[in-house]
Amino acid sequence: MQNILNFIEANKDNHLSQLIEFLKFKSISTNPEFKEDIKNCANWLSENMKLAGLENVKQFSEYGNPLIYAEWLRAGENKPTVLFYGHYDVQPVDPIELWNSPPFEPTIKDGKIFARVTADDKGQVFTHIKAVEAYLKTNGNLPINVKFIIEGEEESGGEAIEEFIHKHSEIISCDYVMISDTEWYDGGNVKNAQPSICYSLRGIAVAEITLTGPNRDLHSGTYGGAIDNPINTLCWMIAQLHDKYGRITIPHFYDDVIELNDQERTNISNLPFNLEDYKEDLKINEVNGEIGYSTIERATARPTLDINGIYGGYIEKGHKSIIPSQASAKISMRIVANQDFKKIIELFKVHLQNLTPPTMKLSIKGEQGGNPVITSLDSKAIKACTLALKNAFDKEVVYMREGGSIPIVELFQSKLNAPAVMMGLGLSTDNIHSPNENFSLRNFFGGIKASALFLDEIGK
Amino acid sequence: MQNILNFIEANKDNHLSQLIEFLKFKSISTNPEFKEDIKNCANWLSENMKLAGLENVKQFSEYGNPLIYAEWLRAGENKPTVLFYGHYDVQPVDPIELWNSPPFEPTIKDGKIFARVTADDKGQVFTHIKAVEAYLKTNGNLPINVKFIIEGEEESGGEAIEEFIHKHSEIISCDYVMISDTEWYDGGNVKNAQPSICYSLRGIAVAEITLTGPNRDLHSGTYGGAIDNPINTLCWMIAQLHDKYGRITIPHFYDDVIELNDQERTNISNLPFNLEDYKEDLKINEVNGEIGYSTIERATARPTLDINGIYGGYIEKGHKSIIPSQASAKISMRIVANQDFKKIIELFKVHLQNLTPPTMKLSIKGEQGGNPVITSLDSKAIKACTLALKNAFDKEVVYMREGGSIPIVELFQSKLNAPAVMMGLGLSTDNIHSPNENFSLRNFFGGIKASALFLDEIGK
Repeated sequence: MQNILNFIEANKDNHLSQLIEFLKFKSISTNPEFKEDIKNCANWLSENMKLAGLENVKQFSEYGNPLIYAEWLRAGENKPTVLFYGHYDVQPVDPIELWNSPPFEPTIKDGKIFARVTADDKGQVFTHIKAVEAYLKTNGNLPINVKFIIEGEEESGGEAIEEFIHKHSEIISCDYVMISDTEWYDGGNVKNAQPSICYSLRGIAVAEITLTGPNRDLHSGTYGGAIDNPINTLCWMIAQLHDKYGRITIPHFYDDVIELNDQERTNISNLPFNLEDYKEDLKINEVNGEIGYSTIERATARPTLDINGIYGGYIEKGHKSIIPSQASAKISMRIVANQDFKKIIELFKVHLQNLTPPTMKLSIKGEQGGNPVITSLDSKAIKACTLALKNAFDKEVVYMREGGSIPIVELFQSKLNAPAVMMGLGLSTDNIHSPNENFSLRNFFGGIKASALFLDEIGK
Repeated sequence: MQNILNFIEANKDNHLSQLIEFLKFKSISTNPEFKEDIKNCANWLSENMKLAGLENVKQFSEYGNPLIYAEWLRAGENKPTVLFYGHYDVQPVDPIELWNSPPFEPTIKDGKIFARVTADDKGQVFTHIKAVEAYLKTNGNLPINVKFIIEGEEESGGEAIEEFIHKHSEIISCDYVMISDTEWYDGGNVKNAQPSICYSLRGIAVAEITLTGPNRDLHSGTYGGAIDNPINTLCWMIAQLHDKYGRITIPHFYDDVIELNDQERTNISNLPFNLEDYKEDLKINEVNGEIGYSTIERATARPTLDINGIYGGYIEKGHKSIIPSQASAKISMRIVANQDFKKIIELFKVHLQNLTPPTMKLSIKGEQGGNPVITSLDSKAIKACTLALKNAFDKEVVYMREGGSIPIVELFQSKLNAPAVMMGLGLSTDNIHSPNENFSLRNFFGGIKASALFLDEIGK
């Protein structure tokens, strides 16, 4: 293994100059003007992957921006297959005037490389390609089988890869999925950043509800007091959705929730989180949530029900004294393993119908969602990744759950039935999606080593 | 008295032809194009009032559209003074294509006179002028002192008369105010219409509240569950504003409420109200309100708290999973005698502040309101009006409270300290503010007699 790490160390300049080439492509996927740049970027990356020693490199272009596939499957059937996922497309660069250096002219300063999409995700996915290359150029083979799928529209919807997976999941079948597109946990202070493995994502279930009372807006003087007001009633119904302990009152809502185990709670309590900084950042005096759980647990490992939008009646300037005919709310529930979004939406609908008084008609639309993701901390991939990060960076590794959803990860889980490991290499100071995006060179070079160490460990 | 009624009967054609002249003026106050029509109408009406025998007829034009004042004060100081209020301005005529006859070419059909603003309010106010005229031309004097104030911008804000009253209330000082600008009660079916005296109006207190949680909209995946959501919290607070009996929970809210007495409740229960028709009209399955009160009582004699508008978070199409920074609600409380809107707003603010959890900041703006109006059913004016209507129409008279507010009536009450009697002559089929507005000739001619009988009764 040491020879591989030595190779990586010796090729730093080479790796960096290749990354700079990669970063120069204006592969902005949200604006069709950059279609040609997208193609050129995909071609360059395909070529780079071939030169790295990856085989059967091809592009699937029939679903949208090119999906780049590559593999090295010579380790044999008794060795695991890891799928590396990433994306080569980037966000737009506005507001351009806030950039200190041009976004597509990579600039190195203070140990960081500044350019659009260094961290999200070109810099991160490139570490895996360079790790495979280092392995192959040094040893002539890999300890495991690998596949890559690198997409070109993660920033603009990701429909192409979804369709591809639905039609051709066999092409990327694997035992584990490795994704580097997240950040090191630092609790809001980059000085506390630690190599982080994200092993769980929350899912989501959304719906929009509308209550209809009278058939028209009414004069609140003439009718007020005699009939139910849809806004007041909607507020009352929403208020019923949590009990006084912050728990969601939908019957059977928690039935499938996997409780945090003691090890996870210890891990979470050891994260460098500062509640006072958290409140100061949001300018709130108090946090609030489900009783019996810490703020991080509430935000990442417990299900929620939030009203994301509400509207009804007169909402322009001034006042209009009406009882409106309707009131509506957009609702999302963040769900955790092993809740199923379809089941949760059904439970939600039944409960809302039961809450609806006979004075109102309830309609529900826009039901959609995605399932939560969890990979056991005991899985071989998590253990290999832990050792790899620890040795590459000489730092303790922390384990995180993310409160948000990443649809592609859920799709890998459901379609490939493969546990996902999110070995993010970003930092909170990377300014992803913002001017002066950057990527720490320490994390870039260390990431290549970590990826090589991961290949080694998981192949044992 | 009979000689006066005979005079009125003999002058029907004359009264009708004068009304037709009056109706021809395009005195639309909501559109400045019709300024000249407004002036011409005011001049014609002033002249008509002089010919009727009214004295000291003058126009106050410094506050907006001309306010027409007239008086006859020769009854002596030991006789009461009644102020008659009305307006000569009208609503626009759109949609003109839905009129069966031109809105400013009065047309008689089926016992009705069709034209813009026959019922609201030219036809109604004209009955009082013709009653005074009949009295003076027959007897040479009136049994009481009278004043008239007829405004020209009731349909467009009414600021002129407000300013006039604030500056010159002594000019229109009086013992009673008589207003004919409302309708006969019919419970939704004009066949059940009965001569109606409205003796009470609700007041109103409005405010807009905003809850602020975090300092920016947040990703509901990253933060959901860990911090309070302003929309959920606002809904919870709104839900606390009523108890399960439909009563408002603001401490001391009901302290000043005058309860309905037994006579009033009997009166209300005798009104031709059909709950099934009411629900069918609104397309609701059930009514709901404060326990212990009937629908009409709830809508006219009890205070309310309605949310007139609510907004917060993402309210465009589709879904955006945010925890918004803010949520707002526009609230109105209908209040009844003897609640005071300023006191109610203070109680509301204190209660809302007490309900606000430490996770949120509360702000309140747009506080305004008007006080309720009530005239005792035992007052001399109500009794005189009752007899007058009963004798003029040979029908039983009903007593109503209105759930809405009429700011000018509240201003008369507060500035002149004079009880108001609302002797409406309109019918629910008059189409006020709509195409084919009309006024029943029975109610026009009967109204002149009723007004004359009222002068007679109150002078006794």
